[in-house]
Amino acid sequence: MSAYTTEELNGLRDFYRDSLLDDTLKFWLPDAIDKEHGGYLLMRDADGSLVDTDKSVWFQGRFATILGTLYNQVEPRQEWLDGAKAGVDFLRKHCIDDDGQMFFMVTREGKPLRKRRYFFSEAFAISGYCQLAKATGDEQLAQEARDLFKRCMEYADGTRPLAPKFTDERPTIGIGVPMIFLNIAQQLVDTVGCEFAESCIDKFVEDIRKFVKDDIECVMECLSPEGDIIDHFQERTLNPGHAIEGGWFILHEARRRGGDKDLEDLGLRMIDYMWKRGWDEQFGGIIYFKDVYDKPVMEYWQDMKFWWPQNEAVIATLLAYTMTGDEKWAERHRMIHEYAHKHFHDPEHGEWFGYLSRDNRVCSTLKGTHYKGPFHLPRMQTYCWQLLESLGTDPTLVVR
Amino acid sequence: MSAYTTEELNGLRDFYRDSLLDDTLKFWLPDAIDKEHGGYLLMRDADGSLVDTDKSVWFQGRFATILGTLYNQVEPRQEWLDGAKAGVDFLRKHCIDDDGQMFFMVTREGKPLRKRRYFFSEAFAISGYCQLAKATGDEQLAQEARDLFKRCMEYADGTRPLAPKFTDERPTIGIGVPMIFLNIAQQLVDTVGCEFAESCIDKFVEDIRKFVKDDIECVMECLSPEGDIIDHFQERTLNPGHAIEGGWFILHEARRRGGDKDLEDLGLRMIDYMWKRGWDEQFGGIIYFKDVYDKPVMEYWQDMKFWWPQNEAVIATLLAYTMTGDEKWAERHRMIHEYAHKHFHDPEHGEWFGYLSRDNRVCSTLKGTHYKGPFHLPRMQTYCWQLLESLGTDPTLVVR
Repeated sequence: MSAYTTEELNGLRDFYRDSLLDDTLKFWLPDAIDKEHGGYLLMRDADGSLVDTDKSVWFQGRFATILGTLYNQVEPRQEWLDGAKAGVDFLRKHCIDDDGQMFFMVTREGKPLRKRRYFFSEAFAISGYCQLAKATGDEQLAQEARDLFKRCMEYADGTRPLAPKFTDERPTIGIGVPMIFLNIAQQLVDTVGCEFAESCIDKFVEDIRKFVKDDIECVMECLSPEGDIIDHFQERTLNPGHAIEGGWFILHEARRRGGDKDLEDLGLRMIDYMWKRGWDEQFGGIIYFKDVYDKPVMEYWQDMKFWWPQNEAVIATLLAYTMTGDEKWAERHRMIHEYAHKHFHDPEHGEWFGYLSRDNRVCSTLKGTHYKGPFHLPRMQTYCWQLLESLGTDPTLVVR
Repeated sequence: MSAYTTEELNGLRDFYRDSLLDDTLKFWLPDAIDKEHGGYLLMRDADGSLVDTDKSVWFQGRFATILGTLYNQVEPRQEWLDGAKAGVDFLRKHCIDDDGQMFFMVTREGKPLRKRRYFFSEAFAISGYCQLAKATGDEQLAQEARDLFKRCMEYADGTRPLAPKFTDERPTIGIGVPMIFLNIAQQLVDTVGCEFAESCIDKFVEDIRKFVKDDIECVMECLSPEGDIIDHFQERTLNPGHAIEGGWFILHEARRRGGDKDLEDLGLRMIDYMWKRGWDEQFGGIIYFKDVYDKPVMEYWQDMKFWWPQNEAVIATLLAYTMTGDEKWAERHRMIHEYAHKHFHDPEHGEWFGYLSRDNRVCSTLKGTHYKGPFHLPRMQTYCWQLLESLGTDPTLVVR
């Protein structure tokens, strides 16, 4: 076990930058932009060929977020601005139902196919809106992002009820809403400003903290409203990649505050606990699901390796290392970085495969589906590149 | 390629009988019967230990169906009668909502957890009710089964609307409803009699026929209401095990009619087409999903091997062989019978594992979940045993 040398860190910085610009973005652009109907055509096979024309509403917001962030943080390329605008325009024009709730899936032309009983389409729309609003200075769009955030908080607290999926017999709370909306609130505040979102951040952090069970070194996905573990299949199920993502959102919040030891410690514990539970000692990588008591998990695909938990673990371990200088995190970053690039990256056509068996056989050639698209991978590449760029200038990072 | 000898067929008959009585049923009985709250406790790990106390409504009906069928067709064992009664009583007492629709999941005590927007809980309740009603002569229960069937047909034709999962933008029809309800109607008619169900059978057969595309040798799961293939991810997806199950339901209907060459030919084509598309030449077994145009399938677990498609293929190939005497079917039966017992059966604790990777690694130790329980496997063992018992006496079978 050893720390990274400056030379190694510079190498990683260049690697993330080049992977983003010369591999991932080249896979998607310019073809992903639908010049005819607006929005993005993202459902693509290994070689980039289009296998479905439907449009995931999540991914209209998510790719707009990626492109807007690149424009704001990297350089003001017209292609990225136009790309972000294509997604946001499509969202505003086609993806909102008459009752104000957003759809989940629409046709190429923007006709609604499916609406779901939660509000994550909204979450990713907010981040796309606010990144573009920062890029263009469009105050009306900024206000739409703030209004949409407020509406989501009304869904979350029940002021605006959504059709329930379950009865009231066994009420639960999930880590998903505070986690995702912590990230969304951070973006909203840091791009166009939002007093209400800023005021929610402390609450999101405290909500997330409830799911961190230090006595058993675990981050739960689901609890009773009183904060207790529920001993049934779905409620026992852990999602290590998701909890590790939540851990780095907390570390990022510590950085936003110019350093916050309590939050840093919380984020590090989350990543540490779930690295230990999620890392596959036998075949490498982060396993999709685990059971809190090591009982068998019900989901049949529970032992597969998906691309995104690996992306989140790459960010989390690198951020933990740069904030602490602890060699343990350099070692874990090495493990996940090497594992993920070896097994998920497609050297022939670029981008990553999405779905591997536990023993790392590629199970699907698809690069884009209803659930996979240009989000976790380019976010990882952008975040890690920018993080390593800021070594020596960001006072919250001890590695220089 | 060669036909089965009489000795081999007798060996298979004994094997299915002994596997059912000495292995599968011993795994589940008597512990699966919940003596405290009624119904069945079925969510069990490899060794039979209980890992969740919730009760799947589907499986209350399904296990009651298995036990009632054994009582009616094999021998009048009190344990089987009491077992069937435990499930049916629980269904009638706890599993029906105030609006008449059945729940999907309830607690051990029978409190509702989840209701879904379709009516397969009802389907399996009907078959449990009618098998028990035949066993006991309970005419009130028989009438409840008939009434529930009528209600399902009202859900199916829209007279009783259910909350939709999708918009009206891309309407589809599925093979699932006519297929499952063909099987349910056959049971209802053959146990307690039901004129209405009898009158539906021809329509179910004709509905199923629409999904059989002879020009491309394929059974679709989903079509436009006009019968056309829809070129999108989910609508292109084939489920070979499901279509093979539908094929043997059609062959069974040909037998019920004392022989019907047109139906026999339809069922054989369905099984033949989907055997060719579903059989994995590389690792053996029936793959879960395939794409009609051999494009990549979106579901991430699409290449896994589940237990039940293997069960259905064992029945279908054996039934096809006994009805035709064609060596091709004996050969396919050999392939699937040997493959499935080698990879799925648990020689240590009995019963079958449910979920294997494409290359036949056991991915889960669970024997019972929300979705797996004592149904497809004991149905296969019962059907194949009874089928081979009837060689020489059933005029619809050419193999003697």
